[in-house]
Amino acid sequence: MVRAGIIGANGYAGAEVARLLMGHKDVEVRYVMSRSFAGQQYEGVFGNFKDINGKELCDIKLSDMAEDADVIFTATPQGYLQGELVPSILDKCRIIDLSADYRIKDVCVYEEWYKLEHHSKELIEEAVYGLTEINRDKIAGCRLLANPGCYTTCSILTAYPLMKEHMIEKDSLIINALSGVSGAGRGAKIQNLFCEVNENAKAYSVALHRHTPEIEEQLAYAYGDKVTLQFTPHLVPMNRGILVTETAKLSKDVSYQDVRDVYDKYYKDERFIRVLDENVCPETRFVEGSNYVDIGFKIDRRTGNIIMMGALDNLMKGAASQAVQNFNVMFGFEEKEGIDMIPMVP
Amino acid sequence: MVRAGIIGANGYAGAEVARLLMGHKDVEVRYVMSRSFAGQQYEGVFGNFKDINGKELCDIKLSDMAEDADVIFTATPQGYLQGELVPSILDKCRIIDLSADYRIKDVCVYEEWYKLEHHSKELIEEAVYGLTEINRDKIAGCRLLANPGCYTTCSILTAYPLMKEHMIEKDSLIINALSGVSGAGRGAKIQNLFCEVNENAKAYSVALHRHTPEIEEQLAYAYGDKVTLQFTPHLVPMNRGILVTETAKLSKDVSYQDVRDVYDKYYKDERFIRVLDENVCPETRFVEGSNYVDIGFKIDRRTGNIIMMGALDNLMKGAASQAVQNFNVMFGFEEKEGIDMIPMVP
Amino acid sequence: MVRAGIIGANGYAGAEVARLLMGHKDVEVRYVMSRSFAGQQYEGVFGNFKDINGKELCDIKLSDMAEDADVIFTATPQGYLQGELVPSILDKCRIIDLSADYRIKDVCVYEEWYKLEHHSKELIEEAVYGLTEINRDKIAGCRLLANPGCYTTCSILTAYPLMKEHMIEKDSLIINALSGVSGAGRGAKIQNLFCEVNENAKAYSVALHRHTPEIEEQLAYAYGDKVTLQFTPHLVPMNRGILVTETAKLSKDVSYQDVRDVYDKYYKDERFIRVLDENVCPETRFVEGSNYVDIGFKIDRRTGNIIMMGALDNLMKGAASQAVQNFNVMFGFEEKEGIDMIPMVP
Amino acid sequence: MVRAGIIGANGYAGAEVARLLMGHKDVEVRYVMSRSFAGQQYEGVFGNFKDINGKELCDIKLSDMAEDADVIFTATPQGYLQGELVPSILDKCRIIDLSADYRIKDVCVYEEWYKLEHHSKELIEEAVYGLTEINRDKIAGCRLLANPGCYTTCSILTAYPLMKEHMIEKDSLIINALSGVSGAGRGAKIQNLFCEVNENAKAYSVALHRHTPEIEEQLAYAYGDKVTLQFTPHLVPMNRGILVTETAKLSKDVSYQDVRDVYDKYYKDERFIRVLDENVCPETRFVEGSNYVDIGFKIDRRTGNIIMMGALDNLMKGAASQAVQNFNVMFGFEEKEGIDMIPMVP
Repeated sequence: MVRAGIIGANGYAGAEVARLLMGHKDVEVRYVMSRSFAGQQYEGVFGNFKDINGKELCDIKLSDMAEDADVIFTATPQGYLQGELVPSILDKCRIIDLSADYRIKDVCVYEEWYKLEHHSKELIEEAVYGLTEINRDKIAGCRLLANPGCYTTCSILTAYPLMKEHMIEKDSLIINALSGVSGAGRGAKIQNLFCEVNENAKAYSVALHRHTPEIEEQLAYAYGDKVTLQFTPHLVPMNRGILVTETAKLSKDVSYQDVRDVYDKYYKDERFIRVLDENVCPETRFVEGSNYVDIGFKIDRRTGNIIMMGALDNLMKGAASQAVQNFNVMFGFEEKEGIDMIPMVP
Repeated sequence: MVRAGIIGANGYAGAEVARLLMGHKDVEVRYVMSRSFAGQQYEGVFGNFKDINGKELCDIKLSDMAEDADVIFTATPQGYLQGELVPSILDKCRIIDLSADYRIKDVCVYEEWYKLEHHSKELIEEAVYGLTEINRDKIAGCRLLANPGCYTTCSILTAYPLMKEHMIEKDSLIINALSGVSGAGRGAKIQNLFCEVNENAKAYSVALHRHTPEIEEQLAYAYGDKVTLQFTPHLVPMNRGILVTETAKLSKDVSYQDVRDVYDKYYKDERFIRVLDENVCPETRFVEGSNYVDIGFKIDRRTGNIIMMGALDNLMKGAASQAVQNFNVMFGFEEKEGIDMIPMVP
Repeated sequence: MVRAGIIGANGYAGAEVARLLMGHKDVEVRYVMSRSFAGQQYEGVFGNFKDINGKELCDIKLSDMAEDADVIFTATPQGYLQGELVPSILDKCRIIDLSADYRIKDVCVYEEWYKLEHHSKELIEEAVYGLTEINRDKIAGCRLLANPGCYTTCSILTAYPLMKEHMIEKDSLIINALSGVSGAGRGAKIQNLFCEVNENAKAYSVALHRHTPEIEEQLAYAYGDKVTLQFTPHLVPMNRGILVTETAKLSKDVSYQDVRDVYDKYYKDERFIRVLDENVCPETRFVEGSNYVDIGFKIDRRTGNIIMMGALDNLMKGAASQAVQNFNVMFGFEEKEGIDMIPMVP
Repeated sequence: MVRAGIIGANGYAGAEVARLLMGHKDVEVRYVMSRSFAGQQYEGVFGNFKDINGKELCDIKLSDMAEDADVIFTATPQGYLQGELVPSILDKCRIIDLSADYRIKDVCVYEEWYKLEHHSKELIEEAVYGLTEINRDKIAGCRLLANPGCYTTCSILTAYPLMKEHMIEKDSLIINALSGVSGAGRGAKIQNLFCEVNENAKAYSVALHRHTPEIEEQLAYAYGDKVTLQFTPHLVPMNRGILVTETAKLSKDVSYQDVRDVYDKYYKDERFIRVLDENVCPETRFVEGSNYVDIGFKIDRRTGNIIMMGALDNLMKGAASQAVQNFNVMFGFEEKEGIDMIPMVP
């Protein structure tokens, strides 16, 4: 059994990691850590865990946890663990980090978009960006995994094949993304109260959202050149789900089948990426509670644009289940172990 | 592998049975039947099944399906299958019926509340009422299982121990129940459109709801005498969930621990019934996507009443996962096989 | 023009009072007060007020505001204003208090249920309980109006005629109430976050809710004797609305028309109380955004119970529009002035 | 009093027209027509009208209604009334048509996008496109008003000033729009059931939505040249609201103030268009229940794009209240008469 710890187990993503690991046949959840809820029964904080795991939320240092764990999942705010996460810890224990701290290789870009000084720059180089389907080989051997963000996973996977094959003009990409509210976390803020969010839709962080450089960096690797894009996130009244609508100029005259072939080239054998049939648009409900990403597209000959669409569950493939997928790759388990749920409808 | 068929696979409960059986290690889903959607790909009707099960919805007679299946789950409207379900079919294949047709032993009561003539009365006697925790022994050997309704399962399990132990006055029980909208089915009706249900709460079928006699009959078995109760269902704007609030006169002066002991006597060893800690009220979100029933209670010394509360997922313990739980008992599998999910929050 | 001030204008009820007063042809909104948001533009806190009212939220003492206002609406937490509200203020300015501080005549009952010491007991006697339809005469001349709670208004008006006419057994009343989330206020609490409330239903404050003694006291006045009842509130995922389902033993054998006549006796000429046709159940959506209360009932001969149901908008008739209705009565305007909206569907 | 009739009063838009006209001081609602609900009490179909208007839904021919009405609002599907609406009717009665039949001047474009033959082409020329703020002068004298669609009103007004002033590249406009579910109408369709829409987001009619040519035509008038744009609508789980996010290439280097000045040039004196402060994004909740359009924008120097955002209530400014606004202009009433509600939050 792999001994696991979770830091930030009081948040939605941390709790989702906990839920998945509690159901993983090769994992023992040894620590559920939360500074703010330390001392409380985990099942008191998340009633779904009643009678399932008798753990208490504890406040323990990362270095101490690392003595007694094979892997630690960190679901904490940006910058929160940089002071504690020193290279020597990685000699003892592998880290799967769900924060943004090690996702962006260019530390200046990180510091500019996050308005934070980075305190463990020396680990950025070593960290592997955990988009499983794209970086599977590097993930296998890594000690520090930077688990991608929810908007990011959906945005990149939806555009990746066409960007890689230069089928779209690289700087024409306009991403409009919709997110369920769990993406905003479990902090007690007026703006996330039920009555502020329900029966409402809005864009936010326009031109400034921090997932922008992460998407650009990864798509630049795919394209082989710098990519600049517009990313506009929106909040819509549902618990879970990311839906991205990506509009781009086609770089040449292509047929439906041409595009389909490109998607199939990269995703045909991927269990967790489903390219939908012609004229079928992805819907977040059809991936809810699962590790799937659903992708569809439409060519508009009138405008010369292609509209690519992707959907995933922000707490699953957009956070926790992708973290477990990466964990499985890192520790040599079957990739689908513990995350092979069929989406639940309604 | 047990060969299974599902009749009414186009409804929410039928699709949930399908989802669970597709993930059950000892079952092969051989038929997904729907008259109205026959000929369509199942994954076209329920996009969550994309790439998971290549089946097409078919229109096949029950008797023909029975030749090639070990068990058939029927998720159809009341009366729909009575003409087709003849005793000889049970010689070939076991039936787990999610409709109300074989739940009520007194056929006059059935015909009065359902305003239907019963066309296969001869099978009512044989049918076993599938409240697993209460009728486990009879379920094991049965050929025709009457799977309880969603309101019913929740209402009965919440009051059962106190009724059984005569701790409450038998005719004082007032049940107010809230249901998510999936309980109303997938039929195209104006009253279930999003804009009719969202931002709305209402009672319906007041004094007339058909689950009333089912609850009364089962609680009468528990009490050992006829029980008359008030059952008032309500529709609230959420996809899933049943919450019952049951108010009854205590028949004697009891302490919290007295009541707790009674609940523990019946449920302590039940994996899927969780009696909550003192002063904790059940919430539907904490059982969503699972086979659990959560139960809490509060004694009000001022009024002499006890308020018992229960929560379950109407499509799971209230329909599909209880059906699979019963299936496991009937076929000798571990009771939790394929239905052991931790509830998903949020 | 009547000069008005609003204390607690940053809450949902306070903002609703502001919205109604801004549209009232005989009122000038002179002060919108909020300690926590003082200095901010009101339209920055509530974007709906953009370009409608240029006011800034201010922090001003009640006594200072009273110098320059004819009426002050206080929408503040229990006990918040007791220190400031001294009798001399009422010589200058009339107060419409939306808190619970002056609703309960028996101060011991108040202090027991609210766990607070009352610091302005001397004003309780003078305060008039503002259930407009019942206390209209007393309201006209009053200086301190205690505006009823949302659960309370709905619970009392639904049962009042039958209690008054002794048509139900006085201690048999069991009230189950459902509330939209705005009733919980605009405080930043985890329990009211979208993802905690959405797709969830729960009972809370079982046997302990503070509106219980308020309902009992008013129904006791109606009945002419002490009334003890069970009140169980629930939270359901919608912004607005209260739905009460009240079950009581009928004290005699009555027909539909007998009960209907009793309701008509008290409510036939009431513009804002609508007694629905036979077999029609009230729905919160049909009163949303209005000052209406909808009432329906069903006699169950099987059980000897009557089920009475009432619906209102908790922020309107349950708070702000009833406050304005009372204001109209107090200041001699037409009772419907500024609150005569047709409910908005959907 | 102006005598008014409503055709299609059983739909959401028709009922909203009825609600507004019932509250309009200069209007008598003489007919509420619905073929499918003829003979039913209007308050039985929409419970909010209880005790407000005693009308019965009737099935009456347009020509007969025109004999006895000064204005008829038609809220019917495309093509539905073309056979009945003959020029001679306009001699007797003015028509405000909420369908798309007379919005597009180029009948070939209409027939191509709507896949319908147009049966009253002779009236298209006369019809005035009812975007009040832009065509006010023409509206005043018109007999046949083509009331704009919900997506259209929001999309056009958001981009109009910049398009008019050539501040954006005319063919670079990419509109992503979110709609509440009431925009899909009140027809009994599985796809609009609560459980299909709730907790879900999806794009639909990608590259094919019929509001596309209507937006293009109107923006072409503004620009003075043909405009081609990408319009992608999405369905999100809320009752009301349209939010558009429009991304376009700026045609020159401009400051925030430059853009602001252009918006102010056209909208400063418009009561129902609110241009928000810098860095404030429109939210649908802040216009709900009102005739307002809220507009915000953000310049992204990194990409050279401007992101313009607009929000309105699809049943109000997107349908019924704009129809009444046009009615007021046509009949010489104050433009805000009967539609001057402050948005309701939450």
